[in-house]
Amino acid sequence: MTGFDNPAAVPPSEARRMIGEGRWQKPTSGLSNGYTQANLVILPEKYAYDFLLFCQRNPRPCPLLEVLDAGDPAVTFLADHADIRTDVPKYRIYRHGVLTDEVADIKAFWQADFVSFLIGCSFSFEQALLENDVPVRQIEEQCNVPMYRTNISCRPAGIFSGPMVVSMRPMTERQAIRAIQVTSRFPSVHGAPIHFGDPAKIGIADLSRPDFGDAVTIRDHEIPVFWACGVTPQAAVMASRPEIAITHAPGHMFITDRKDTAFSIL
Amino acid sequence: MTGFDNPAAVPPSEARRMIGEGRWQKPTSGLSNGYTQANLVILPEKYAYDFLLFCQRNPRPCPLLEVLDAGDPAVTFLADHADIRTDVPKYRIYRHGVLTDEVADIKAFWQADFVSFLIGCSFSFEQALLENDVPVRQIEEQCNVPMYRTNISCRPAGIFSGPMVVSMRPMTERQAIRAIQVTSRFPSVHGAPIHFGDPAKIGIADLSRPDFGDAVTIRDHEIPVFWACGVTPQAAVMASRPEIAITHAPGHMFITDRKDTAFSIL
Repeated sequence: MTGFDNPAAVPPSEARRMIGEGRWQKPTSGLSNGYTQANLVILPEKYAYDFLLFCQRNPRPCPLLEVLDAGDPAVTFLADHADIRTDVPKYRIYRHGVLTDEVADIKAFWQADFVSFLIGCSFSFEQALLENDVPVRQIEEQCNVPMYRTNISCRPAGIFSGPMVVSMRPMTERQAIRAIQVTSRFPSVHGAPIHFGDPAKIGIADLSRPDFGDAVTIRDHEIPVFWACGVTPQAAVMASRPEIAITHAPGHMFITDRKDTAFSIL
Repeated sequence: MTGFDNPAAVPPSEARRMIGEGRWQKPTSGLSNGYTQANLVILPEKYAYDFLLFCQRNPRPCPLLEVLDAGDPAVTFLADHADIRTDVPKYRIYRHGVLTDEVADIKAFWQADFVSFLIGCSFSFEQALLENDVPVRQIEEQCNVPMYRTNISCRPAGIFSGPMVVSMRPMTERQAIRAIQVTSRFPSVHGAPIHFGDPAKIGIADLSRPDFGDAVTIRDHEIPVFWACGVTPQAAVMASRPEIAITHAPGHMFITDRKDTAFSIL
């Protein structure tokens, strides 16, 4: 059980095996450090084109890493030997946009027309920020990153539309400059920030009241820096109220066999 | 008619107007310098999901810049006020994978179920190479870039599959290092090279006999450097023999209102 002793050092294949066997139902932050984790959205095939197009038109909030074939639960690009029905610690089932179940595997819910979308996640670039001495406040404060709805509209695609949701990390101007450099190298995990400074300019009224996640401390001499967030496509899906949609539970991600550094372009 | 006197300085909206009125039916190389040009693939809607997925799975050869709504000829993201049926200088119509027509506009061929895909093109990064003193041989020799089929398989998607096609530019090792740096900054127009040196390692038997385009001189002390090429998705489409498909004629591109520099991530 070395995996439980030192989660950061567990190889991703072993982490997925623990998860698949139901032996790890906690958040995946800190598990298999250095390997990319992915957000999950599963939809019936009839919505797949609109969703794929929504991601193409909004690559900053919706950086698609892999799309599985309809009805096929096997992940082939991001991992060897992974089953998307079991290898996420916790799933959420939504019917007509309403959360109805939270489960440890989705074999009982699987449909032959399900298409699974795996989407990049900010965990990857946060590791790079820490290595560059840029603080990541919600890690320091051991809570969830604060996320906000903005007044920036996504480009709609078919039935999907909605505002861009952003995550926020406070830092000094000097750290923000370094953060822009560092995260620009990761276009497939949200890339550079989309705004910094005055939250009102992107329609955020009160930083102490995030729409998702937890508020974090903003110290004197710090400014808020905003990145496009993977909650954006989930929010767009739920707003369209499909008869069924499945996602990972917040923080309970799919762990890939790809290193974070593999998604850096420079 | 200043446009004809100095094509490089013609604003892109003016270039598209000349093209739309049939007053420019030549290749677009050197027209509206500094503005991104795009490859075009038009397919009936029933193939659109497979093609979109093929591009998602093969982003290096198939960097999608914009997908128009089914039946809608209006380009909205890459340009203001552009009609994809008229604003390309020359189109090719393929029926069941066979070239049947070459025309200056496609209004007579337009179908309500057509989906138009605009794909990034290496013209964008070649400008950046020249600015960094990296030679672009086919520009020096005023011919088409040499392109080759490789033994690298694209990841298939639905009905679409096939080998990656690459373009080749010869240069010194030192220039190749600079070229890798420069083109890495342009992930949405093919990005970094995929190979350099021995062509046999990617299944190319004879550099003097390209599969598409023209052979160029490789000087002593130069090595070939290979980039994923936008001919890849066209070749995959033709191999699947859809009842109709429309593309731009080689070199006769769609000129966007976006500057090349807008597609650089750093």
